[in-house]
Amino acid sequence: MENIKYENGVLYLLDQTQLPNEESYLTPKTKEEYFFAIKSLQVRGAPAIGIFAAYAMALLDGDKEELKRYLDSARPTAVNLSWATGRMLKAYQDGKSLIDEAIAIHEEDKAMCRKISEYGLSLLHDGDGILTHCNAGALATSAYGTGLGPLLLGKEKGYTFHVYTDETRPLLQGARLTSYELEKAGVDVTLICDNMASLVMKQGKINAVLVGADRIAANGDTANKIGTSGVAVLAKYYGIPFYVLAPYSTIDYSCKTGDDIVIEEREADEIKSLYFEKPTALPETKCFNPAFDVTDSELITAIITDKGIIRAPYCENLKKIR
Amino acid sequence: MENIKYENGVLYLLDQTQLPNEESYLTPKTKEEYFFAIKSLQVRGAPAIGIFAAYAMALLDGDKEELKRYLDSARPTAVNLSWATGRMLKAYQDGKSLIDEAIAIHEEDKAMCRKISEYGLSLLHDGDGILTHCNAGALATSAYGTGLGPLLLGKEKGYTFHVYTDETRPLLQGARLTSYELEKAGVDVTLICDNMASLVMKQGKINAVLVGADRIAANGDTANKIGTSGVAVLAKYYGIPFYVLAPYSTIDYSCKTGDDIVIEEREADEIKSLYFEKPTALPETKCFNPAFDVTDSELITAIITDKGIIRAPYCENLKKIR
Repeated sequence: MENIKYENGVLYLLDQTQLPNEESYLTPKTKEEYFFAIKSLQVRGAPAIGIFAAYAMALLDGDKEELKRYLDSARPTAVNLSWATGRMLKAYQDGKSLIDEAIAIHEEDKAMCRKISEYGLSLLHDGDGILTHCNAGALATSAYGTGLGPLLLGKEKGYTFHVYTDETRPLLQGARLTSYELEKAGVDVTLICDNMASLVMKQGKINAVLVGADRIAANGDTANKIGTSGVAVLAKYYGIPFYVLAPYSTIDYSCKTGDDIVIEEREADEIKSLYFEKPTALPETKCFNPAFDVTDSELITAIITDKGIIRAPYCENLKKIR
Repeated sequence: MENIKYENGVLYLLDQTQLPNEESYLTPKTKEEYFFAIKSLQVRGAPAIGIFAAYAMALLDGDKEELKRYLDSARPTAVNLSWATGRMLKAYQDGKSLIDEAIAIHEEDKAMCRKISEYGLSLLHDGDGILTHCNAGALATSAYGTGLGPLLLGKEKGYTFHVYTDETRPLLQGARLTSYELEKAGVDVTLICDNMASLVMKQGKINAVLVGADRIAANGDTANKIGTSGVAVLAKYYGIPFYVLAPYSTIDYSCKTGDDIVIEEREADEIKSLYFEKPTALPETKCFNPAFDVTDSELITAIITDKGIIRAPYCENLKKIR
């Protein structure tokens, strides 16, 4: 399954908003189409957004600085986005081939995911029950993924895992993407609602929690999909290791702690109407719809990056790989 | 708002499966219709089910013992159901008027809810932020409710509360019923997804959690809607009081601990298809769909019943009100 494909000068994007019912590819042409794809989550997952934006920087004409600012504004929380557009801008200023640079970012991501997957797999055991939240698989990256990487790589190597995936409201990435992706890869997967995580943990079905990350502060506090912090609190209570898997580029050393991370708020209709046949609440009912939350580093057993497995004390140990 | 109305020999039931988009009343006639109403959650909430089943026992002809067994089997976890049908069976055996007995159960529930609401309100402060899960309001009982009782009674008495309600997947009782009921009563309510509870607690928006109960074991372990135990773990982590509000009849002294409570499992389609325009996962994807979970009594700050406010040690203090 390839979510982003560059072939004969054309960029193809698997439209993740249509999964799991339709597998359709988009071919964005204008900067507005690229912006919309990021904003509306047709492409999502920090690394995939970075790769996609890199191709956008290469393929779109016009002022590259302005283009970078425009693309960055589509998802303010995704540090990979500005990292990738920044790297592309530098390549432009250095007179490099932009398409070669975008392809390099894409290839490096594949190698990076493979490394994370190998480090992650070294912490798991054949037969383990795994809980995951949101989608940090191949769809969110280039191949293997981060949070799901050890499971997809493990499958290739003959491991059997029993995976529970939170559906991940309101956008249902766990249902629409993770259960789809694992099912397609032949991994044993069971879909649950977010609020069932406590019970499956209590019943002893879970040996480890694997999640991705959107931004990691210098002290290890981790911004990821809304609900991640709740899963981490539960894992702590039930004595289950909680692993964050993310590329090195997700670490934002300029963020001292999670308090410096701005939480993006999204539309009420994502909660009340999107995906539903009928609204689930009255039109006048208010919603609070934060897209991310921050997991305190004290709840994280280890942060697994392409530069290795980092454990507490995070301030010190994250500095070592800088 | 009256969910169950007995008028001129006819029983009216507000069909909760149609809320919040339609307010339609059913008039069940056959035992199959009564059974279906309980099974399919047209009537839900332990006390409301008890009241409804009491009227069923009064209004349906035939062998009352057999009828009790039949009705009880519609929702095995709801102890109020078998409590109410048991009381009706005894009234029948004692030669009492069955409709008077059903009306008495209904009226006693109103008085009971009022008491729970007053005890609960005594623990809250004007301006408090409150989190609730599922629906334990007037719709789940007769009036005021249990979990929502202090909020609805508080509103009448001029208190202002800022209520956050979990939407409560998969059946969305928090969205469809709680946000509806509080909105209609003029209480300030904000709808969130279940996985946002951790963030609103972390942000300091919540001063207390109020939930109902389906069954309380002799040691205080409490079965309630799936997700309740997760909210309790979060409340403990963030240092927020977690209150269970339920009628005395919810206490099942024959259950020593929560381990004795059977967790009802429901259909996969409730997670993947129900309420949605399109399925959220592939047809072959397995789901685990437990309807309840059990909250360990160590996570519960107090159990508020019509017989007073009970605190730990629960084994001892629940025995005192037996």
